[in-house]
Amino acid sequence: MSAKPNAIVAQSGGPTTVINASACGVVQEAIKSGKIGKVIGATNGILGVLKEDLFDVTAEKPEAIEALKRTPAAAMGSCRYKLKQMEESRADFERVLDVFRAHDIRYFFYAGGNDSMDTADKVNKLAAKAHYDLVCMGIPKTIDNDLAFTDHCPGYPSVAKYVATCAMEAGKDTEALYTTDTCTILEVMGRNAGWIAAATGLAARTPEDAPHLIYMPEAAFSFDKLVRDVEAVLKRLGRVFIVAGEGLKDEKGNYVTADSGAFGKDSFGHVQLGGVAEMLKAVIEKEVKIKARFNKLGTNQRAAMHFASATDIKEAYLCGKTAVQQALRGVNGKMVTLVREKGKEYKCTTGLAELSDVANGEKKVPREYINADGNHITKAMRNYVRPLVKGEAPVTIGEDGLPVFMRFKRKPLKTKLPNCL
Amino acid sequence: MSAKPNAIVAQSGGPTTVINASACGVVQEAIKSGKIGKVIGATNGILGVLKEDLFDVTAEKPEAIEALKRTPAAAMGSCRYKLKQMEESRADFERVLDVFRAHDIRYFFYAGGNDSMDTADKVNKLAAKAHYDLVCMGIPKTIDNDLAFTDHCPGYPSVAKYVATCAMEAGKDTEALYTTDTCTILEVMGRNAGWIAAATGLAARTPEDAPHLIYMPEAAFSFDKLVRDVEAVLKRLGRVFIVAGEGLKDEKGNYVTADSGAFGKDSFGHVQLGGVAEMLKAVIEKEVKIKARFNKLGTNQRAAMHFASATDIKEAYLCGKTAVQQALRGVNGKMVTLVREKGKEYKCTTGLAELSDVANGEKKVPREYINADGNHITKAMRNYVRPLVKGEAPVTIGEDGLPVFMRFKRKPLKTKLPNCL
Repeated sequence: MSAKPNAIVAQSGGPTTVINASACGVVQEAIKSGKIGKVIGATNGILGVLKEDLFDVTAEKPEAIEALKRTPAAAMGSCRYKLKQMEESRADFERVLDVFRAHDIRYFFYAGGNDSMDTADKVNKLAAKAHYDLVCMGIPKTIDNDLAFTDHCPGYPSVAKYVATCAMEAGKDTEALYTTDTCTILEVMGRNAGWIAAATGLAARTPEDAPHLIYMPEAAFSFDKLVRDVEAVLKRLGRVFIVAGEGLKDEKGNYVTADSGAFGKDSFGHVQLGGVAEMLKAVIEKEVKIKARFNKLGTNQRAAMHFASATDIKEAYLCGKTAVQQALRGVNGKMVTLVREKGKEYKCTTGLAELSDVANGEKKVPREYINADGNHITKAMRNYVRPLVKGEAPVTIGEDGLPVFMRFKRKPLKTKLPNCL
Repeated sequence: MSAKPNAIVAQSGGPTTVINASACGVVQEAIKSGKIGKVIGATNGILGVLKEDLFDVTAEKPEAIEALKRTPAAAMGSCRYKLKQMEESRADFERVLDVFRAHDIRYFFYAGGNDSMDTADKVNKLAAKAHYDLVCMGIPKTIDNDLAFTDHCPGYPSVAKYVATCAMEAGKDTEALYTTDTCTILEVMGRNAGWIAAATGLAARTPEDAPHLIYMPEAAFSFDKLVRDVEAVLKRLGRVFIVAGEGLKDEKGNYVTADSGAFGKDSFGHVQLGGVAEMLKAVIEKEVKIKARFNKLGTNQRAAMHFASATDIKEAYLCGKTAVQQALRGVNGKMVTLVREKGKEYKCTTGLAELSDVANGEKKVPREYINADGNHITKAMRNYVRPLVKGEAPVTIGEDGLPVFMRFKRKPLKTKLPNCL
């Protein structure tokens, strides 16, 4: 064992543009502190811990670590593996502690959404019971922006900037070609929360601008209303640009569309959403009798480093860095939060929330951010999201004119335990 | 009538990121020449001519004209209205000449694909027959890059840069989350030509990088082969990232998927493509038994000004400018082409091709640009496209952190003829 205790950093769930910036904050602050031995990367999140598939991040080139700030997705690898209730998967939890013990890991930094905060919380509690000294810190990460106790989540500002820009650009396309291609539908992610869809409202600086209609899961969706809304916009402008969140629900709370095939649920048990845009297109073509087309950005929206928000990258880094600083100060079992300071000028500092509170919370778009008709956003929403999308963060461009992203060498640490997975 | 003859500038077909840069070249060069009275914009291409829906571009603010270089889509408006054979739509052609006569239009600058070049050619021939002095010049425009007689088409370099970047970014996402989300399919445009799909091959700098498989309409597609290809990549990397052109065809030349609904054809009679990615996803999930997802950028790929190629903007402008210069030199009935000079360093100049030749030509991805397996590109293709994507062209960013695009005031010219449409 080394003289200084080691830390593990792991990434979980759907990648974002800036989850690597958070990891960069963890690694650089850990090195700077001089109080941590190795920072160990878990390959593919908690799966890497269970498999003892680990690598020494501090042995990677400093340039590679710095380049994390401008590389999307998850450089350590991510996963959707969820540790179940302690009773059901006691073996998994015990294994996590065994691996931590074997590698003298005393700090666990976990970037993810509420499922990941739940995992970190349970690992933490088990360690305490087993009298194993461990500090578990959560780092918020989700493009869906649905974590409670934080003003917003790293990853959200970049996806907001990108989808608003996409709405603006594809909106220009519809404006140009409306005589035949009269309706365009942009489907965006966000699951049960409409934060991403809502962000596209920024593109509508004037009533002529796209998007003209924004449907968020927080407002009950009906096809009858859709047809009325579309006809009203057509009457006004002769064209219509619609943004639809992937998780739209009707008045009874049923998904407007839900894939029911073999892969209808993801491995966390979430219903796999998708197909909303296709359904809207079909209804509009049939009922309104105009041509409609759809754009589905898919994973490109959460990986769009080439147009990320500089504010987001800075704050994501801050979350990682703060997690280390707080851990070294003796804080434990918390997730770093982003706190919007009061005042006219946007200023963001950090706070802390209990992992267990975050695990069980969920933050939807509040009613006052959605207009009375349930088909666009209000000024309050604009004020909320506007400061987040500010700032450009150009990617590094290679000689070939395309972005350059990093990839860790990931030289595996020697395993110390028998293989168990 | 003004002392100096007027010019009309019109945009046609699917918008691109840089068709406005070409229009800017026309307008600024026309003003600079001092030999042209008004430059008149036809609202929505040839439709605007038929409807006598015209506006004075030279009356717009110089800043708005300059901002064309950084605004996607078609600032004059575009259309898919196609003038049919002269015999069938004699009235349309006569009407075009009547409108030209009424507004003393002696120069017709038309930016579009081969259908538009056909229109320009026919208008030109009718004018000659009617002894009406008219110069018709074509400006190449298509993201599909399928026009003959030109090295490449303005619009293509920007879509190439953007889709290659999207493949790179979404590829990173798949690389991070492959333990559950093992396969990603990126569907791109291009109709019957695989140029856009081929461009994503630039993202694959190493065999680990996405895309691992690229399917272009020029290589016969089969689902059996797809399954074998996917299994081979999975064996090597544990994940697979696929790019699919929208117009994939089987060995018999039938589209792999073709929407047969009411809107199955566009108004030029082209089959409306789409749905390739959904079909690939379904087959891969069923046969390979891995989770697959798809991203369909749709019109966002042809409007992505926020990551346009600086080379493309420059060359698109050059095409517009050259069209005016040549017209003023007495050239008529030609389309400006882009000519790649021989030599190690990329250098592009302009040439001229007959409108009628371009109208009837089509340029597919040559066999030697596609690998032997028909599922990726060769070095020859990389060499072709690499210089085109070079150069960044940051958009103007507003106070709100989002791009600022222009919109013409479009103050309509007073009509001089009875309404006929």
